[in-house]
Amino acid sequence: MDNKHDILCLLRSVANGETRPEDALLELKEAPFEDLGYAKVDLHRSVRQGAAEVIYGAGKTPEQIAGIAAAMGERGCRNILITRMGKEAADYVASQVPLEYHESPRLGLAFPGERRDLGNIVVATGGTSDMPVAEEAALTAEAMGNHVTRLYDVGVAGLHRLLSNLDVLMQARCVVAVAGMEGALASVIGGLVDCPVIAVPTSVGYGASFGGLSALLSMLNSCASGCSVVNIDNGFGAGYLASRINQMEGLETK
Amino acid sequence: MDNKHDILCLLRSVANGETRPEDALLELKEAPFEDLGYAKVDLHRSVRQGAAEVIYGAGKTPEQIAGIAAAMGERGCRNILITRMGKEAADYVASQVPLEYHESPRLGLAFPGERRDLGNIVVATGGTSDMPVAEEAALTAEAMGNHVTRLYDVGVAGLHRLLSNLDVLMQARCVVAVAGMEGALASVIGGLVDCPVIAVPTSVGYGASFGGLSALLSMLNSCASGCSVVNIDNGFGAGYLASRINQMEGLETK
Amino acid sequence: MDNKHDILCLLRSVANGETRPEDALLELKEAPFEDLGYAKVDLHRSVRQGAAEVIYGAGKTPEQIAGIAAAMGERGCRNILITRMGKEAADYVASQVPLEYHESPRLGLAFPGERRDLGNIVVATGGTSDMPVAEEAALTAEAMGNHVTRLYDVGVAGLHRLLSNLDVLMQARCVVAVAGMEGALASVIGGLVDCPVIAVPTSVGYGASFGGLSALLSMLNSCASGCSVVNIDNGFGAGYLASRINQMEGLETK
Amino acid sequence: MDNKHDILCLLRSVANGETRPEDALLELKEAPFEDLGYAKVDLHRSVRQGAAEVIYGAGKTPEQIAGIAAAMGERGCRNILITRMGKEAADYVASQVPLEYHESPRLGLAFPGERRDLGNIVVATGGTSDMPVAEEAALTAEAMGNHVTRLYDVGVAGLHRLLSNLDVLMQARCVVAVAGMEGALASVIGGLVDCPVIAVPTSVGYGASFGGLSALLSMLNSCASGCSVVNIDNGFGAGYLASRINQMEGLETK
Amino acid sequence: MDNKHDILCLLRSVANGETRPEDALLELKEAPFEDLGYAKVDLHRSVRQGAAEVIYGAGKTPEQIAGIAAAMGERGCRNILITRMGKEAADYVASQVPLEYHESPRLGLAFPGERRDLGNIVVATGGTSDMPVAEEAALTAEAMGNHVTRLYDVGVAGLHRLLSNLDVLMQARCVVAVAGMEGALASVIGGLVDCPVIAVPTSVGYGASFGGLSALLSMLNSCASGCSVVNIDNGFGAGYLASRINQMEGLETK
Amino acid sequence: MDNKHDILCLLRSVANGETRPEDALLELKEAPFEDLGYAKVDLHRSVRQGAAEVIYGAGKTPEQIAGIAAAMGERGCRNILITRMGKEAADYVASQVPLEYHESPRLGLAFPGERRDLGNIVVATGGTSDMPVAEEAALTAEAMGNHVTRLYDVGVAGLHRLLSNLDVLMQARCVVAVAGMEGALASVIGGLVDCPVIAVPTSVGYGASFGGLSALLSMLNSCASGCSVVNIDNGFGAGYLASRINQMEGLETK
Amino acid sequence: MDNKHDILCLLRSVANGETRPEDALLELKEAPFEDLGYAKVDLHRSVRQGAAEVIYGAGKTPEQIAGIAAAMGERGCRNILITRMGKEAADYVASQVPLEYHESPRLGLAFPGERRDLGNIVVATGGTSDMPVAEEAALTAEAMGNHVTRLYDVGVAGLHRLLSNLDVLMQARCVVAVAGMEGALASVIGGLVDCPVIAVPTSVGYGASFGGLSALLSMLNSCASGCSVVNIDNGFGAGYLASRINQMEGLETK
Amino acid sequence: MDNKHDILCLLRSVANGETRPEDALLELKEAPFEDLGYAKVDLHRSVRQGAAEVIYGAGKTPEQIAGIAAAMGERGCRNILITRMGKEAADYVASQVPLEYHESPRLGLAFPGERRDLGNIVVATGGTSDMPVAEEAALTAEAMGNHVTRLYDVGVAGLHRLLSNLDVLMQARCVVAVAGMEGALASVIGGLVDCPVIAVPTSVGYGASFGGLSALLSMLNSCASGCSVVNIDNGFGAGYLASRINQMEGLETK
Repeated sequence: MDNKHDILCLLRSVANGETRPEDALLELKEAPFEDLGYAKVDLHRSVRQGAAEVIYGAGKTPEQIAGIAAAMGERGCRNILITRMGKEAADYVASQVPLEYHESPRLGLAFPGERRDLGNIVVATGGTSDMPVAEEAALTAEAMGNHVTRLYDVGVAGLHRLLSNLDVLMQARCVVAVAGMEGALASVIGGLVDCPVIAVPTSVGYGASFGGLSALLSMLNSCASGCSVVNIDNGFGAGYLASRINQMEGLETK
Repeated sequence: MDNKHDILCLLRSVANGETRPEDALLELKEAPFEDLGYAKVDLHRSVRQGAAEVIYGAGKTPEQIAGIAAAMGERGCRNILITRMGKEAADYVASQVPLEYHESPRLGLAFPGERRDLGNIVVATGGTSDMPVAEEAALTAEAMGNHVTRLYDVGVAGLHRLLSNLDVLMQARCVVAVAGMEGALASVIGGLVDCPVIAVPTSVGYGASFGGLSALLSMLNSCASGCSVVNIDNGFGAGYLASRINQMEGLETK
Repeated sequence: MDNKHDILCLLRSVANGETRPEDALLELKEAPFEDLGYAKVDLHRSVRQGAAEVIYGAGKTPEQIAGIAAAMGERGCRNILITRMGKEAADYVASQVPLEYHESPRLGLAFPGERRDLGNIVVATGGTSDMPVAEEAALTAEAMGNHVTRLYDVGVAGLHRLLSNLDVLMQARCVVAVAGMEGALASVIGGLVDCPVIAVPTSVGYGASFGGLSALLSMLNSCASGCSVVNIDNGFGAGYLASRINQMEGLETK
Repeated sequence: MDNKHDILCLLRSVANGETRPEDALLELKEAPFEDLGYAKVDLHRSVRQGAAEVIYGAGKTPEQIAGIAAAMGERGCRNILITRMGKEAADYVASQVPLEYHESPRLGLAFPGERRDLGNIVVATGGTSDMPVAEEAALTAEAMGNHVTRLYDVGVAGLHRLLSNLDVLMQARCVVAVAGMEGALASVIGGLVDCPVIAVPTSVGYGASFGGLSALLSMLNSCASGCSVVNIDNGFGAGYLASRINQMEGLETK
Repeated sequence: MDNKHDILCLLRSVANGETRPEDALLELKEAPFEDLGYAKVDLHRSVRQGAAEVIYGAGKTPEQIAGIAAAMGERGCRNILITRMGKEAADYVASQVPLEYHESPRLGLAFPGERRDLGNIVVATGGTSDMPVAEEAALTAEAMGNHVTRLYDVGVAGLHRLLSNLDVLMQARCVVAVAGMEGALASVIGGLVDCPVIAVPTSVGYGASFGGLSALLSMLNSCASGCSVVNIDNGFGAGYLASRINQMEGLETK
Repeated sequence: MDNKHDILCLLRSVANGETRPEDALLELKEAPFEDLGYAKVDLHRSVRQGAAEVIYGAGKTPEQIAGIAAAMGERGCRNILITRMGKEAADYVASQVPLEYHESPRLGLAFPGERRDLGNIVVATGGTSDMPVAEEAALTAEAMGNHVTRLYDVGVAGLHRLLSNLDVLMQARCVVAVAGMEGALASVIGGLVDCPVIAVPTSVGYGASFGGLSALLSMLNSCASGCSVVNIDNGFGAGYLASRINQMEGLETK
Repeated sequence: MDNKHDILCLLRSVANGETRPEDALLELKEAPFEDLGYAKVDLHRSVRQGAAEVIYGAGKTPEQIAGIAAAMGERGCRNILITRMGKEAADYVASQVPLEYHESPRLGLAFPGERRDLGNIVVATGGTSDMPVAEEAALTAEAMGNHVTRLYDVGVAGLHRLLSNLDVLMQARCVVAVAGMEGALASVIGGLVDCPVIAVPTSVGYGASFGGLSALLSMLNSCASGCSVVNIDNGFGAGYLASRINQMEGLETK
Repeated sequence: MDNKHDILCLLRSVANGETRPEDALLELKEAPFEDLGYAKVDLHRSVRQGAAEVIYGAGKTPEQIAGIAAAMGERGCRNILITRMGKEAADYVASQVPLEYHESPRLGLAFPGERRDLGNIVVATGGTSDMPVAEEAALTAEAMGNHVTRLYDVGVAGLHRLLSNLDVLMQARCVVAVAGMEGALASVIGGLVDCPVIAVPTSVGYGASFGGLSALLSMLNSCASGCSVVNIDNGFGAGYLASRINQMEGLETK
């Protein structure tokens, strides 16, 4: 019921006598999802080409994941992202539905289909060890129809690696900065580019990195210049938001 | 030296013999800012109409704030934001440079000038007590040339207050969700709209809100659906980023 | 829109042609509260005798508090609780609306009216220093029409003080256990009584009490036997919930 | 010695000469439990039909669990809950006493017997991954003789899933809201229903969820409207308390 | 009711017909303290010469403190310690009861009387800034009849200051080690002496001392060799415990 | 060099010409321990009957543990405690030196010998799950020549289990209170007995027990009445300190 | 007794009969400091020209500070640093001993004397607000005879400000990097220079900077390349250590 | 581009017409490292004899580690440190490049070559369990051409073990103090020596050591006297920094 237009339409059809009030109430309650018992599958958004749906895999059984994916696929969903799914679960899911699986970022793409290649999102990492999270972001963005440029291992301890790629950064419509440990990458990139920067702290590190807390705090404290932060290791969230920003319509089309 | 084009130009002028190598080095080093001793004022960005510069007021003396603002104003900067500036400091600064001051968000606007009114940014708050932070965001966005719609006191404890403003939310190009305590506002809005959502945790609350930590963690954990987070009470950062997103050029202009 | 019955009624009146769809949408949006600009005052609940409304006073100006209270009072609300309101603010509010003010728990009761005296809620404290929080709970419960028995300074360090009041505890329908420092009171009471126990950690203490964190954790870890916890110093929340429990209808009335 | 009536009786029987003082002291000391050496089994409460006793399984050896359960069973206890018992321990216990075991919530029911089906408790979860904790709550409440309605995967990110089940929520005498990550479910439900809400934060999540801390803080900060909180993942505690509230006698029976 | 002997006596007197059961119950409930409403004053312990009672002053009004002290004094208590009482409160209390006040440790001694000077407790500090806490410990111990030796400013950064006082340390029956910042004093003393060491972390320090947390953790981690820890800044607790240890009867007197 | 008397003796022997200055320096440096390379084995204390030495087993290889134990044993040490030693390491050590091993508290006793049985230390636990830590304390105290009384599973949730053992508690010269979760046991015992109480928080619990933090803070905040705290799960430290206190000489022997 | 040579000399003089053993013990105990009661003033180090002593001012009364400074001055100390001394205390101290006071870093220099100007230490800050801490470092280093170059407001958000000062950084023997908020300055400088870098986190910032914790963690996590960290706001410690490093003798002089 | 001289040279060659501006830009971008896709290998520093390069092994696949090491080795690097590399990964790497592997500190040295033995660095530990971290520091320093003296198991609980090695400490040019638990070793050493002290907290300990947090805070709070801190368990960082300090040129060579 999150759409003014839909409510108006429904009310009008009640007013026209086309719909009984009791049925309208029913529709308001049952339309937007399919209830599998263990999950209420969201089928509300129109299934547009290139758009991706997502299943959070952690804490779900392989059977539940496959069940949700199948329900979505049957309704015509394509490029359904499954995040935080281990190899074993993926093997089972792949036996039930078409699946493209990436082991390092533990990401699956069920019912893979055609995808667009819009705009330009740069995904940068501080180190090689941040790659799994960065790939989750990059693959998510690609699944949602965006063009992605990868810029890995450009951490601030060797600043020349970053500076020599300034032209790559400058051509981005949105940058995803992935870094663990001290997380300074986001601050430095935020000071160099003019587009929105999404910072992803990673749990890479040891000791006083406290599982990504250090990078998280560091990134939150450097947000003055157009960057914002998502959860530790949340590559998916960064890729999803980057897609939204990259695909913004221009102001002049209003 | 954060601009490929500038370096190329400079190198070419060296190649042409128009610039001596030593002078080029000097230029690389001295151009982008003016050194006031206690501050290196950034004058690097071309001064475009509607664009705002910012001075972080906390921890600076009134004299330092006024000095930096004056240096900027002399170079033609307009609509210079001064954040976290107390009433007393504002009184001094206002005696030195033209200043528009907002007491509740402790925000000043030095050398106020003409501003554009582009697009639409919605700034929403969970409660009345979140208003100072929300105003920092809203005034920042307005100073940077954006149209802002305020939607205050729509916290999730009384969900109907939010739901009855769905049409306002739906028309936003970007939403800034400001909330303290449990910070659930960002999650709920994130599930309702399709545009980017910037979550601002506030230090409003007591006890286990731990100065905004509760809202911060809550917001970080709900980022799956297109929202991201800035620092606690960082209204400025949210307004600045919202402006970047709101003023994105459309993909078709590439 | 949180009430199935109301939606059905509205839909039926649209179906009858008594209401236009556009008006229905409007009604859905505007009915439940009055918009004061800085606050959306909730007038949704039917104003029953003995029921209290509440205004969270912290972070609001005296003018805002008085404005909200006046708006409620005009609609017929009585016994409106105002929490976390300092003496100075209370003086202003009292100049605008009828107000009963309790300084130690910083609690006001605007438009005080007749109240019921139902059931029995025991409010117990570990020490004398926990009294302000306990009074917030007790006065809240009284404002909502409950009978309250106070049992103060019965902390576990002198167990006989608690044990000699066992009969008082045994006659409660609900116990509010208020304690700071090590917060063991809730555990001990939880093991003695059969009714629900609401634990309120207080910020009383120093050093490793960390502003109430110690009592909070202690209480959360002892919840096995029918007790639950509210926020640190949240006397109001405990009193409100105790009222709900105390006024439960019996199963046999179903 | 937690019962005024018992003490009086005992004292009277001493006064009557029916009991020697030394024996009375002995009785005060030995009656309420059976000492197994490693555990003092509580046999104090009269064994009423439908009432459940509980064994906290974590940190106990299978032999200890079986020993305690057997001691209780011999005294006539039925529907004895065993929480946090792994599959392996359950296998051993099942070889010693009658046992019903639920693997996902790691919950056992020893000496299962007849149960009542009183009132109505709704157990709601934010996501599918919260199900093990929710089941611990639901099965606990059922073992204690309550009617339970499950409402799973209704998290606030897709608000329509919750809103379309408003009628289910409205019919509850008590709601248990189980959620991890940002834990906003409790706030939203707390604003929708009039009955007591028990919030259970879960350790579901990653990164800045910090093992359930995020949900815990979020829930503690939203307790103004009739909800309270139990320990992270403490489904048992929530089910136990919900049972107490659901089975409250009505005020009119006083 | 914390005394087997008392219960037996009472039961016997009931058995003898000297006491009615109802009166016995009453006695069990009312004897051990006097109820002032805001406080239940403990008068349970026999008032022996040299023994001190204590009132925790923080969070109590001057009137409450004076009231409790007066009630104790009337029953014959002497050397009543009042901790954490500010200068202003002390002035009021001194106008009501005989009071000896120490401003730096904010400690009062009401109804000061004769005191013994038993054994030997050494109170050592890491620095000059730890003196207020150390004095709270030393004065507490003295009020309770112990001989106290002060050894201030012997922190480990200048180890020779400590080592040159080894003979003082060696003659202690119990050492109270008071230190802030890194709190290493307790570890070093613990390795040097054979008597029990009570470590008191102080909130002296800045930055990563986090209000005494650093010293607290440090001291907890060095407890292997006969030392234990009390709360941050809890000089009273350390002095009280030191008194108990110092006044232990010898094993051979059993 | 931690002994005034030893230094004086040595200096006198230098003065007498019996010792050369260079040799004295050497002696000061080499006497108190044997250097095994990976460990400096402390042989400094005179090896008295009944006294125990201790090896912290965690982080040491089985070979290192056996090597240190052997070096001690050769010098005549008996009843050498080895803490935090896993089963596998114990098997190796037992193949090298005489060893008595207790698996649940992971404690070994190398070169077990005759032991005294002095005084009386009570070791109490809140629950059955706290037994491994309690056994570490009890076995340590026994190895050091103390009489130990165990009082397990007397947590405050069922207060009668504790109260009915008051006479056991009253006869202790020192109580070790071992508890996890909310750790209230120490507070309650501290209010009941007159002897020193050593509180040992355990990591038993889940969720907001945060690995023992909850019990630790709880115990630190209840130290007013003669109790103090050691590190989480530090049964050894508690047993060691209890021994020191239990074996205090009486004041009258001075 | 921290000096092998001193002990040998003393032992030899005892051997020669020049010193009695009792006197030697006395000397070992009393020589290295003067005992003022509240402080043990360290006079142990030979008073060399240019070397500074230090008094930690926080938590000491003005009288104590002046007393310690006077005792040092009388022994010939010059350039005695007094840290964390407020304006009011400084006024008193200046009335007792010669004092040079710097208000912003709250630093005093008692008995100011001649100073050397050795080597080159660069003190850099991220922002203007970090200046008080930076000045504490710089003035400390100058008081200890070092040449200091200040490089303020060169934070990573405007990287060109730092890069254009590369030659200044390159000429340092040691760099002190002072920064709050995200603390990335240390990482970036650490990657640019070859000399030791001392990172000083400051409490500058708000919200998730948590009083300097963010900068502290960030700096600890970026220490791979030759940098290390001191306490939050510990400008003195950084300046002191920088002096030690700057004044290192060369390896070839061994 | 972190070197003023290099930029000048390049600009001059552009001025001479020897380099085209486009090529210069290219060179600025590509020279300093080799891009392996997953890593940008730093080959920027001139490969001097005795200097070591480092690969952070954690989070990298064995193939990535070997690839990076091989790329370095081909360019002539020797003594390449590989930190935090498990046994299994080491086996693979050793099959690809020459490797010296140390299992306890999980440290590899690829392409081992000739090394110098300069100056003197003392590496001290509090206990035997700190050895793996200490060895990482010691081996790092040795790989970089320094002479290292090991001083293990000299913790402050047995102070004589440390004091009897004062002469070893006194001869150091730099001390690395490695300790877990309460971390007091650094404070004590810092007060004894005059050279820079690098403190390394270790995660050795349990309970309230919180994975090294206790030692970390302790060390940060004792930094007044010339010591500084690196990350928990960061032996490499300490060894690297110690090398920089040990190999400082003397001031007189300027």
